[in-house]
Amino acid sequence: MDINQAMQAVEQLMSEAVNSRVTTLRDASHHILEAGGKRFRPRIVLLSYAALGGQDVDYVAPVAAAIELVHTASVVHDDINDHGVVRRGRPSVNAIWGRTFALLTGDYLFTKVYELMAPYQDRNATLAEATVALVEGETLQASAAKEGNLSREIYLEIIALKTAALFKAAARLGGELAEGQAEHLEALANYGYNIGLAFQIVDDILDLIGDTEQLGKTAGLDVAQGKGVATAYSAANGTSHSAVAVAEDEEDLMTSIKRKVLQGDTITKAQAQARMLAQQAVEYIDTLPPSNAKDQLIDLANQVIEREY
Amino acid sequence: MDINQAMQAVEQLMSEAVNSRVTTLRDASHHILEAGGKRFRPRIVLLSYAALGGQDVDYVAPVAAAIELVHTASVVHDDINDHGVVRRGRPSVNAIWGRTFALLTGDYLFTKVYELMAPYQDRNATLAEATVALVEGETLQASAAKEGNLSREIYLEIIALKTAALFKAAARLGGELAEGQAEHLEALANYGYNIGLAFQIVDDILDLIGDTEQLGKTAGLDVAQGKGVATAYSAANGTSHSAVAVAEDEEDLMTSIKRKVLQGDTITKAQAQARMLAQQAVEYIDTLPPSNAKDQLIDLANQVIEREY
Repeated sequence: MDINQAMQAVEQLMSEAVNSRVTTLRDASHHILEAGGKRFRPRIVLLSYAALGGQDVDYVAPVAAAIELVHTASVVHDDINDHGVVRRGRPSVNAIWGRTFALLTGDYLFTKVYELMAPYQDRNATLAEATVALVEGETLQASAAKEGNLSREIYLEIIALKTAALFKAAARLGGELAEGQAEHLEALANYGYNIGLAFQIVDDILDLIGDTEQLGKTAGLDVAQGKGVATAYSAANGTSHSAVAVAEDEEDLMTSIKRKVLQGDTITKAQAQARMLAQQAVEYIDTLPPSNAKDQLIDLANQVIEREY
Repeated sequence: MDINQAMQAVEQLMSEAVNSRVTTLRDASHHILEAGGKRFRPRIVLLSYAALGGQDVDYVAPVAAAIELVHTASVVHDDINDHGVVRRGRPSVNAIWGRTFALLTGDYLFTKVYELMAPYQDRNATLAEATVALVEGETLQASAAKEGNLSREIYLEIIALKTAALFKAAARLGGELAEGQAEHLEALANYGYNIGLAFQIVDDILDLIGDTEQLGKTAGLDVAQGKGVATAYSAANGTSHSAVAVAEDEEDLMTSIKRKVLQGDTITKAQAQARMLAQQAVEYIDTLPPSNAKDQLIDLANQVIEREY
């Protein structure tokens, strides 16, 4: 199975799935999908499938597409809640179409997930569970930001739910579709889970140290809102800041928090943890039979921690 | 099958489904669910199932619960977009928890739908299709309100998508789970579709002539936003109003529009159409074998048009 060719099939499926008769939904969905994105999640579905001997692109591609649509829907809704105006190097759906249509576009994308998944019977439950976790993680994060009590423990719980659960489902579903052995499915699930944690930690570091142009999305939103790795890791170091205080004079305080965090060892610690998680992920799939797809899963673990946007 | 007992099982399932580990999601979901609501949709699932000989409450109840959760999710998101502060006689989720959590609660409820539906294999596609239609209908409505071009034709297209599609799916799924004959399934689908149209027209009339206390939800929102039956039906009578104008001095203009509409024959015409649709719905199920459930479906058609809130 040629992964790049399979990824093209996934793109095609996503694009076709959102061809709504309603112009705004169609345009807004295509806008966010065509902006690209890193596509780690669907790639993991395909590679996990291939690594356990799967060969039928037509069978696996809709599941990969569904998982990327879950992520895309959550991104569209996130940009409403976080007032993100740039996403994947383009104005966000919220910025162009406004809140009402961004909310409906996200709902639309969520719904299309289940249309794509409908033929896959009991796989539906796995994806539904991961999607529930994603929404729960986002909610925990919003609560912690509001209450200003984001600790490192809560941070890890949040990223496990909002990110790692979907990466885990991606790897596991790929393996399940290939009808892999139980131990290989477990190995893939653990791989996905760890990659997901590493991915989110790196994402949060980049939110902190990157700029909007480089990232392709509004930078510093997490710092400004008392979310993300800076708050979580610096809280443990006694350099915590209050989300409420930030709101009062956002620009200045953000700069000052960023300076403090960058001076301390927050970033270094977080980077070390991401590397360790990616390394563990690779170890989990050690038991998988050798294959080109397995090698690509290992490469992907490195890409996740080495990426700069 | 005792329908009232089955409805209690549906309530129980919904309540259990939303027992999130995340406090806000659990509280906000229970808040909106415990406020009640008319529960027409799950009742139609149960009655359609029973009318075609279905007897297993445990089998049908999760589907009825899932359909009510689709509706509940859409209501929670609606109140964000429409700034509705009262819903089912209580403050809306948006009013209590704010926009971010209302958005996430709606997402959570949408996701729980698919967890409930996961064991039902190919029925998933029917519900997913209806949910897509619902979101498309809401979007068409928001577009028409924004552009101020809501005609009677567009209005009927909107309510077909946003309301009738889900009522149709409710009736059809009930029949499918009972493994009814194709012609009976078709009859139920047509019944549900017509009931759905009638229901929405009556809903929009009540939005226009009722007050917030009586309705249990913020009244007049559709008029204020150039949505709903008043705009649609009065447009055809040359008494249309601009949604943009309304926004400028909402309170006064709303009163003046309401007076104009109430003086004309808009309400009478809309009521006549709702009655006709309910009558057609009843005729569609004429071919169903006699049963207590069939009688209750006929009663329900009358309740839909005679209700005062």
